[in-house]
Amino acid sequence: GPEQAASALEAVSSSLASDFVQDLPTGITAAIVDEMRSDEQADLLSEMPQSDADAVLREMDPGEARDARELLAYGADTAGGLMRKEFLHFPTGSTVGGVIEDMRENADSYADYAIQYAYVLRDGVLVGVLRLRDLLFSSKSSPVESVMLPDPIAVPVAATIDELRDFFSANKFVGVPVTDARGALLGVVHRASIRQAQSERAEDDLLKVSGIVGGEEIRTMPLRVRARRRLSWLSTNILLNVISASVIAFYEDTLQSVIALAVFLPIISDMSGCSGNQAVTVSIRELALGVVKPNEIARVLGKEASVGVINGLVLGLVLGLAAFLWKGNMYLGVVVGGALAINTLVSVSLGGTLPLILRGLGRDPALAAAPILTTITDLLGFLLALGFATAFLPLLTG
Amino acid sequence: GPEQAASALEAVSSSLASDFVQDLPTGITAAIVDEMRSDEQADLLSEMPQSDADAVLREMDPGEARDARELLAYGADTAGGLMRKEFLHFPTGSTVGGVIEDMRENADSYADYAIQYAYVLRDGVLVGVLRLRDLLFSSKSSPVESVMLPDPIAVPVAATIDELRDFFSANKFVGVPVTDARGALLGVVHRASIRQAQSERAEDDLLKVSGIVGGEEIRTMPLRVRARRRLSWLSTNILLNVISASVIAFYEDTLQSVIALAVFLPIISDMSGCSGNQAVTVSIRELALGVVKPNEIARVLGKEASVGVINGLVLGLVLGLAAFLWKGNMYLGVVVGGALAINTLVSVSLGGTLPLILRGLGRDPALAAAPILTTITDLLGFLLALGFATAFLPLLTG
Repeated sequence: GPEQAASALEAVSSSLASDFVQDLPTGITAAIVDEMRSDEQADLLSEMPQSDADAVLREMDPGEARDARELLAYGADTAGGLMRKEFLHFPTGSTVGGVIEDMRENADSYADYAIQYAYVLRDGVLVGVLRLRDLLFSSKSSPVESVMLPDPIAVPVAATIDELRDFFSANKFVGVPVTDARGALLGVVHRASIRQAQSERAEDDLLKVSGIVGGEEIRTMPLRVRARRRLSWLSTNILLNVISASVIAFYEDTLQSVIALAVFLPIISDMSGCSGNQAVTVSIRELALGVVKPNEIARVLGKEASVGVINGLVLGLVLGLAAFLWKGNMYLGVVVGGALAINTLVSVSLGGTLPLILRGLGRDPALAAAPILTTITDLLGFLLALGFATAFLPLLTG
Repeated sequence: GPEQAASALEAVSSSLASDFVQDLPTGITAAIVDEMRSDEQADLLSEMPQSDADAVLREMDPGEARDARELLAYGADTAGGLMRKEFLHFPTGSTVGGVIEDMRENADSYADYAIQYAYVLRDGVLVGVLRLRDLLFSSKSSPVESVMLPDPIAVPVAATIDELRDFFSANKFVGVPVTDARGALLGVVHRASIRQAQSERAEDDLLKVSGIVGGEEIRTMPLRVRARRRLSWLSTNILLNVISASVIAFYEDTLQSVIALAVFLPIISDMSGCSGNQAVTVSIRELALGVVKPNEIARVLGKEASVGVINGLVLGLVLGLAAFLWKGNMYLGVVVGGALAINTLVSVSLGGTLPLILRGLGRDPALAAAPILTTITDLLGFLLALGFATAFLPLLTG
């Protein structure tokens, strides 16, 4: 039934949920979405193609559709986009007995609400919070104003996810009301929604770093969608790869003289990519968590350069030693190991800072950082190894 | 204060929280952990080194420490490890008025509880659930047995995270009681905890695929810890890289004759790695979500092979064409493009299935899949390109 389906879709991420409903008839999707919580409705609809979302909204219950449209109009990562429209509210002048009576009458519609608080409104403006448990201890004839906590904390509808995270870090509340400029109550953001939104954003970023773009991929999706999505990322990559490898073509003469270098070029390329990608992943994560800000490039650069020096020296020594042991030529070891050491330092420093730079420029760092990084470090790695080799050519061939 | 710190630590993942407290004095950590919810306590303590966790437990409030120890004794991904000890319970024979009186008296200690339900126990055995709202509508002298929902659904303490996810997909409940073999109530698992545990597991897996091992890395961690953790993964990788690149050494003569091949070897290595890693990432995700089981190798192989054929053909054509246009030799294009096409098919098929095989063998797929994959596909890619070239040598040099 739609209710079970709604419950199942709420339990998975919204991009996954949108993949599940994409092949269902619009009427059935609308019936399922009607049963979902307003914030989950908006998440799901925002992941669907615009025309599909519009079709579903037209077939939904008008009240549900209005709430979903309102949430969709706010940015997905703002209080407006993250809030739920399911909350209890009563006008000033209500009595405790009246509130209890309303809750009894509407027990079924309120079943999905996270009822720990009810909100007291004067002409729509939030003036107090009623803790449900306080109703138990009060006389039924008391006006709600005498039981409520006055002047409740609220957040503006435009508050960002980072501001909300800071709010919930500093406060124990399970939810916070969201108000507009005149103080009217628009919805309630729950602590759990913030954590979930952050997790989904972080997971999505990590998937992009590995080349899974356009949202999560699940193997029940059609073959052409999966192949096309993956190719969109791979085809950019192959062009960038051809560009960086073309450096090798300029050094054909050196390679011809020291053919052993051909063994080490893929190693230098792969290892620099790995080292740099570790730094990219850490930065992407820290950006998603809000632990680092895009303008902290100098701090991140310092931190990463230190790691880059240590790991560059270790890896350069290992590879240089391998080259020396294989060919018995110390200079080959110096050329190969030196190129890897320097390239690791650059790769790690660049990998750490590139996501911050891209974010600062308003680009998606999760998507662009890895391809840009590997292109630059491949290019530089080949240039260093073959350039050094050209400079030391007599020693290498002697 | 400890309460604010506890709230902040509950808002981040447990591995990150353990990094934050690792430099604090034990007494302060204990004071903070005392203020955390029992399931968060257990998560945090399980991420700390055993000796640190024991020291903190000794300095904690004895009651809090007992609950935390109990949760730690269960597997982290079972109902026992995920449940909270903070729940309301009343013995059979209580009256509605008595329950309300108890809630009024203990309002402060119950402030952190997610109070939508209270549980009714007979000699510790769960016999009913009280919905808080039902208390509002009942006479104070009624016994709780007349208000409660009898025979409540419960899950066994050993239920796995996958079973719990299925449970919450099928039911609307925000929490489910956890009982032992004789039906005694041990704790309550909340819907939000399951989602969060799954998210953390999935994020951790994705970090490992990018080479961030041993838990999350945050740049406030000490340099030596960060450098060592990253090196542990990189040093395995460089050895595997040396092994696979050694294939190139066996074909020095072919390379010497067709030096242009040296340009394409890093491209084939990198592109096969990228294609395979996309498939690894999707499988790791699907395993974490429970969408795929380790024994579904044949199904995943079929799905991935189809993607591999399409993307292999496209990428092989692009690279083959580039080789042909550069050197004007059709056979060079066939050798290079053919090697990439075949290697992409193998890489994507292997990348999709390897995580399932590793999981089936009881290994951590997130850690091992990518290094094993790139070693095999590098080896095979070099072998294909240089083997084809050796076979067609007269045509390539003609």
